[in-house]
Amino acid sequence: MDDLLNPHRKWMKAALREAERAFEADEVPVGAVVVRGNVIVGRGHNMVERLEDPTAHAELIAITAACSTMGTKNLTGCTLYVTLEPCPMCAGATVLSRLDRIVFGAFDEKAGAASTLFNIPQDPRLNHRAEIISGIEEERCAELLQEFFRRKRTQGGDLTRDA
Amino acid sequence: MDDLLNPHRKWMKAALREAERAFEADEVPVGAVVVRGNVIVGRGHNMVERLEDPTAHAELIAITAACSTMGTKNLTGCTLYVTLEPCPMCAGATVLSRLDRIVFGAFDEKAGAASTLFNIPQDPRLNHRAEIISGIEEERCAELLQEFFRRKRTQGGDLTRDA
Repeated sequence: MDDLLNPHRKWMKAALREAERAFEADEVPVGAVVVRGNVIVGRGHNMVERLEDPTAHAELIAITAACSTMGTKNLTGCTLYVTLEPCPMCAGATVLSRLDRIVFGAFDEKAGAASTLFNIPQDPRLNHRAEIISGIEEERCAELLQEFFRRKRTQGGDLTRDA
Repeated sequence: MDDLLNPHRKWMKAALREAERAFEADEVPVGAVVVRGNVIVGRGHNMVERLEDPTAHAELIAITAACSTMGTKNLTGCTLYVTLEPCPMCAGATVLSRLDRIVFGAFDEKAGAASTLFNIPQDPRLNHRAEIISGIEEERCAELLQEFFRRKRTQGGDLTRDA
């Protein structure tokens, strides 16, 4: 019922399921979906460790998947839902892909580029601007990250999300 | 002889060869190589049109290739040579990949994020900083782009590099 009143929560929960897949794969748990109308056209979760590729963030994977699904490089009319505020790379990708809207869950104090440190998707000097909605399912998105890093500290693993 | 005095020119010429491959494929002509010591460990040219993927910039392809070659997500000790100043997405990727140095040719007035509009690779708030050297083979790098857009205008094609 709550999701009917706030459709953003429904899609953020889909992004959270992606983040949980990252968690299970021992990746920093960030997930993303790209939605057009009432359909998910792209999904992604962080795969930096598995692919040994620092660019394999959830958002980039979801954006590339959405472009593939739709057969276009232009995601006008689409919204990106992501559990963590995008870093500069991913915020830049939202400009390049001309997404209408970015909805994120938790804020990223260390590298957030969609309001915290930078606001790249709304910079008037760039040739595209997106609406930004923040804090949707924030608590659950943040908790998943905190739980991941808590376990890593206990295990003595690599603690940083490179960003 | 000149290249012996200025090794950056030698590697920028390799990036220019990548840019020429983009030009021949009717892509906005930007090319990049990642160099470690005296070896190219990653190459890339813009493939946005062919892949219908707005994230398929030369720099991201070269960074991913270099990580694959070296079997690591960390490009410490490497230099990125790119014919055009990186956009926010690509500048963000240089931070994530922990490149030592970014050497670019032409400045990008519209989307440059390594000195012109932003200086993401040297932002003290992020967890990595790179040296930036600009203007290497600038004239040739810029000319190739100008020639591409001049032809596109004549042909009446899509004129913008999305960024």
